[in-house]
Amino acid sequence: MRVPRAALVCVGSELLAGQVNTHQAWLCVRLRRAGFEVVGESSVPDDAQALRRALERALAAADAVIVCGGLGPTFDDITREAAAAALDRTMSFRPALWKTILKRFARRHLRVPEENKRQAQVIAGATILANDAGSAPGQFLRSRGRSLALLPGPPSEMHPMFEGLVLPRLKKKHARDVHPAAFSVRLSGVPESAADERLAPVRARWPQARFTILASGGEVSFHALTAESSAPAARHARARLRREILDAVGEFAHGEGETTLEAAVGARLKARGISIAVAESCTGGLLGGSLTSVPGASSYFLGGVIAYENAVKNRRLGVPSRLLARHGAVSAECAAAMAKGARAALNSDMALAVTGVAGPGGGTAGKPAGLVFVAVCGPGRSNSVRRLEVHGPRETVRQRAVTAALRLAYDALS
Amino acid sequence: MRVPRAALVCVGSELLAGQVNTHQAWLCVRLRRAGFEVVGESSVPDDAQALRRALERALAAADAVIVCGGLGPTFDDITREAAAAALDRTMSFRPALWKTILKRFARRHLRVPEENKRQAQVIAGATILANDAGSAPGQFLRSRGRSLALLPGPPSEMHPMFEGLVLPRLKKKHARDVHPAAFSVRLSGVPESAADERLAPVRARWPQARFTILASGGEVSFHALTAESSAPAARHARARLRREILDAVGEFAHGEGETTLEAAVGARLKARGISIAVAESCTGGLLGGSLTSVPGASSYFLGGVIAYENAVKNRRLGVPSRLLARHGAVSAECAAAMAKGARAALNSDMALAVTGVAGPGGGTAGKPAGLVFVAVCGPGRSNSVRRLEVHGPRETVRQRAVTAALRLAYDALS
Repeated sequence: MRVPRAALVCVGSELLAGQVNTHQAWLCVRLRRAGFEVVGESSVPDDAQALRRALERALAAADAVIVCGGLGPTFDDITREAAAAALDRTMSFRPALWKTILKRFARRHLRVPEENKRQAQVIAGATILANDAGSAPGQFLRSRGRSLALLPGPPSEMHPMFEGLVLPRLKKKHARDVHPAAFSVRLSGVPESAADERLAPVRARWPQARFTILASGGEVSFHALTAESSAPAARHARARLRREILDAVGEFAHGEGETTLEAAVGARLKARGISIAVAESCTGGLLGGSLTSVPGASSYFLGGVIAYENAVKNRRLGVPSRLLARHGAVSAECAAAMAKGARAALNSDMALAVTGVAGPGGGTAGKPAGLVFVAVCGPGRSNSVRRLEVHGPRETVRQRAVTAALRLAYDALS
Repeated sequence: MRVPRAALVCVGSELLAGQVNTHQAWLCVRLRRAGFEVVGESSVPDDAQALRRALERALAAADAVIVCGGLGPTFDDITREAAAAALDRTMSFRPALWKTILKRFARRHLRVPEENKRQAQVIAGATILANDAGSAPGQFLRSRGRSLALLPGPPSEMHPMFEGLVLPRLKKKHARDVHPAAFSVRLSGVPESAADERLAPVRARWPQARFTILASGGEVSFHALTAESSAPAARHARARLRREILDAVGEFAHGEGETTLEAAVGARLKARGISIAVAESCTGGLLGGSLTSVPGASSYFLGGVIAYENAVKNRRLGVPSRLLARHGAVSAECAAAMAKGARAALNSDMALAVTGVAGPGGGTAGKPAGLVFVAVCGPGRSNSVRRLEVHGPRETVRQRAVTAALRLAYDALS
């Protein structure tokens, strides 16, 4: 089976002036999961000629082309014109679409700038893609067996339009007879290289499949994708892939699909009715920030103490002064005492603590930048401390520390 | 003056499978600052043919082409071969370079895999770019007035090599007679559209300059770039641009260049010898995490209390129960009490507090998701609270809340 191909074109001078391109990773994950292979991405400025050339190249290389950005009302929004030129088609003003746009403004009691009329220009043969979150409608086109989707740039508009309107059409057009078998797993507590080595035999057994391993902030995610000719064959292949992958790295897995470690910890806390608190030194609040990134975290997360200064560790967490004097703030002893202190101060069932040298300064020969201790206290009588040495800049050290603490909680809740 | 052009090619199948492309924004900021206009970026998989075509296109469009990734030792590292093919040049094995690579492994007591020999293959005419942080050397090539730099993918290797070895060469080759006048400013406490409107007259007065406005997490950054034919003319143009831009939006500026708001707050705290603490509800620690992202934050940041649960607000921050009962946890009164409580509990000169409904759940008609109060207490007798309503998903609300709290601190320290 040939896997259908997709290509991305991201439009906007800001993407070439320092703004982070968030479209690429977001779209790649979703296209892959739907059974598409993404064969290329390009970012182009607000320049109709450059965009037209990029579109022509993308249409030559892929079955489906997704364009994000350049559908706004101003002179430098050139995606409609460039796409019409690339497909050699005309555009026309659609009064009904204009009425929809006018209504949207009226609901918000806003004046409609005359230039917004450009957003009612539609390429011949296009299906209009409604935008519930903004004024720029999208367009979906078919040409010589290819699909071309034009979507607005703001993620809050692009995301629901892609998932609700574009992806179902792409699956129907290009993946009707292709039955993707995709399996993803997220790992923590294991270096990428070690995970990769353990997974090598699985890769060898599936020469026709595509595998990707990604490491980010101390988590590793592994994706497998293969295409089968029938739905039952795909279900069977997925079950086999899943079994083989979990046999190889299951002990490090905290979730299938896109489950983040903080969500996996949250799910275990919620299922068992256990509350949690944190005590943070070098992470300065990032561990609490991570736990509370999960909607509904208030059902298990109580709060914590950010104890950056030693006096705060002593007074607010009850870490004994003589412990600090003897072992220092960056020590297994201090981490354990911080966790115990947070559990008592917040009256929680369990608590996590982090202390370390985030760097780049502040390290010594015995305690270099990157040395971190994470500790867990509870639930019940369980306690444990882990030591890690991270090589990398300040934010890498802090992110790894958060991941290590979360993994400690995940294991303590097993 | 024509501004020299740069193009980026990012190599690696992982960039098309969900890994975030961090090269693009990082390189664009630095190239722009050096006076280059970035005219395009493309991400290609580990496929020599696709990369060769991308290189040929980039070399046709730009004066300088930066390639990141694909210089590793394994079979799927294809950048050297693809670049040699694109330039129609041969490659040869360099024994001296191989010795350097061997020494690096020996220092770390590691066995050298035979396949690493590929990393000692050098394209005819290339200058070798030393890599102090990894085993993959870079290469710098000149062809028909163009420059081509091949750099490894890991940011810890690519960043110092680009700044130390590539950028000086690019400036010398392409920007010798071009004197860029660049000015950037970062704003907070103002919506992007309002900043844009105020800056419109500046843009109109400089038709030959390039302007970019970027909004991210509640901060707005504005960049201006123009090219002059002499160094004095560039200095003069920059001074004029700076004055005009600051006249238009100076009241919202917290820093020039790339100064983040947390760094600007930190600098004011440090300069005045003032210590700070935080009390966080809906941000769960992100405000502390942001303040401590600045190296050396320990000289002014003491710590804080993450008070997610109301009992923690009451017991650890002394927010009166009757205040919580009467006004609710999401109120100006509660924010002010939390800031006051954190200042007392942490014994700091000033404190910041955040409370709000991060969403998506938890909102009511009177207090919808996105409603946030931020408060500052101190230094001295100053106190203030700000209310904001953020439209967007949970992480947008939390990020805006952090920015609003930091801006409040910045203003309190003026």
